[in-house]
Amino acid sequence: MFGVTILGNNSALPAYNRHPTSQVITLADHLFLVDCGEGTQMQMNHYKIRRSRINHIFISHLHGDHYFGLPGLLTSFGLMGRIQELHLYGPSALKQIIDLILHVGATILPYKLHFHALEEESMLVDDEHFSIESFPVYHRIDCWGFIFRERRKPRKINPEATTQYNVPVEFFERLKQGEDFIQNDRVIPNETLTIPNKPPRSYAFAADTLYNESLADTVGNVDLLYHEATYLNDKLDKAVNRFHSTSAEAAMLAKRAEVKKLLIGHFSSTYESLEDFLEEAKEIFPNTQLALEGQTFMIV
Amino acid sequence: MFGVTILGNNSALPAYNRHPTSQVITLADHLFLVDCGEGTQMQMNHYKIRRSRINHIFISHLHGDHYFGLPGLLTSFGLMGRIQELHLYGPSALKQIIDLILHVGATILPYKLHFHALEEESMLVDDEHFSIESFPVYHRIDCWGFIFRERRKPRKINPEATTQYNVPVEFFERLKQGEDFIQNDRVIPNETLTIPNKPPRSYAFAADTLYNESLADTVGNVDLLYHEATYLNDKLDKAVNRFHSTSAEAAMLAKRAEVKKLLIGHFSSTYESLEDFLEEAKEIFPNTQLALEGQTFMIV
Repeated sequence: MFGVTILGNNSALPAYNRHPTSQVITLADHLFLVDCGEGTQMQMNHYKIRRSRINHIFISHLHGDHYFGLPGLLTSFGLMGRIQELHLYGPSALKQIIDLILHVGATILPYKLHFHALEEESMLVDDEHFSIESFPVYHRIDCWGFIFRERRKPRKINPEATTQYNVPVEFFERLKQGEDFIQNDRVIPNETLTIPNKPPRSYAFAADTLYNESLADTVGNVDLLYHEATYLNDKLDKAVNRFHSTSAEAAMLAKRAEVKKLLIGHFSSTYESLEDFLEEAKEIFPNTQLALEGQTFMIV
Repeated sequence: MFGVTILGNNSALPAYNRHPTSQVITLADHLFLVDCGEGTQMQMNHYKIRRSRINHIFISHLHGDHYFGLPGLLTSFGLMGRIQELHLYGPSALKQIIDLILHVGATILPYKLHFHALEEESMLVDDEHFSIESFPVYHRIDCWGFIFRERRKPRKINPEATTQYNVPVEFFERLKQGEDFIQNDRVIPNETLTIPNKPPRSYAFAADTLYNESLADTVGNVDLLYHEATYLNDKLDKAVNRFHSTSAEAAMLAKRAEVKKLLIGHFSSTYESLEDFLEEAKEIFPNTQLALEGQTFMIV
């Protein structure tokens, strides 16, 4: 399974029972937490997230609605007796904050917390089956997005073709990796002997950002793009002033980046209803959905 | 009105939809916030607390379940355009934490935040109508309780008696303050001319603490005592090790202090049902209630 579960979809102020930003990405049997607004651990209880499967937490930036739930989650992990190591990725000052909070509370975590400072676009997790990379976005303070990508899967053997050309079983692994087969000086192209596997899927979380065309290259062609939509387009000035985007802008970016599907969130507490966000985005990019809390969006 | 509204009654880990410690004390048209565990601002929304009437916040100690909601509340006040000054009382390191969090988020609060470090037993708020004092309790780290006391109210004029003794109206204020009246060298005792007003009421919040008899002097005779009861008495060892109290101990303290009524809270997430807490306490101190979330307990 590859999917994203929304734990919080609101910006800044909690309102209308919407919570500040937090998402859980399920990928290759791992859970990854992206942002951790206040109340995230309660939302995890509510939506029965198996927190023991979280070994990596990514914090996009140090505005409170994206990390004020983190100290509570880290100390709760400790109180629950966690011993598995935990990797935390965020702007470097996050370590200072966590260290200070643990120090003044005389709290010693029973598990090892590895902190990784986000400083430049880079590969954060380099697994056999997937990768997670950071990329900078355009906010009032240092802010990072994250792309989750499956690795390209090996091609599949075409059994009829390999039988027809008498390819020895020992060569199958090389075929899967894309090699051609040579038989009596004759090249049998790989495409004849194999069939493509499912294309690798990808998810981009674009954090809090001004609309910026250059992001379209970074997140180009992902299967699912989460882009913030703090305001509707009639508050474009406000969005720009505060380094946020409108729903129309999120859709423009999705269109330009030629993504398959767009998920919008980080709604301002000015708006009680979210329907206008969806309508505004769909006019520009029809395959849009609202990041509703408790819902899981599959990456397909 | 003088009452306490419970926003959170659980210890350490949020569980069974119980939240970490937070209370709102209503006194003489003011609201006072005592402790601010994670999610307090959401609980304020839920229970419709008029946060604009909060000008004083008291943080007992720097374990997360008592203040991890504070950074969110302070920044939300700012986002909501607060300009009224706010007084924050807590252990001195709290200021470091708040300053660091505001600094890294490039956040400037639009209101003046006055920080008052808790360092010794002292008078924190000295109002015409009431006082709020701090007192140390016995916890693993520096920890403070708070007593809210109404001022003694002036005595009331007994109109029949003042007529009978021809006391001039100009002297009434002095009568109310307890002075005797002298008429032709004869002393008319104040008690003859006035009647007592309602006795001043008091509430003590005893924070997180080991059972300690000396607290009984400090909180002696208050009308309502909030005392933590993290465990039942069969986990007394655990309570002692962690500098907490059992329900029986809370009741023993209430009995020894001769308070009118006891409120118990800060329940461990080990326990789903709270009935045993109530039963255990009532055997020792019958006038006990559970600090249930969303309920307001009047001080009478």
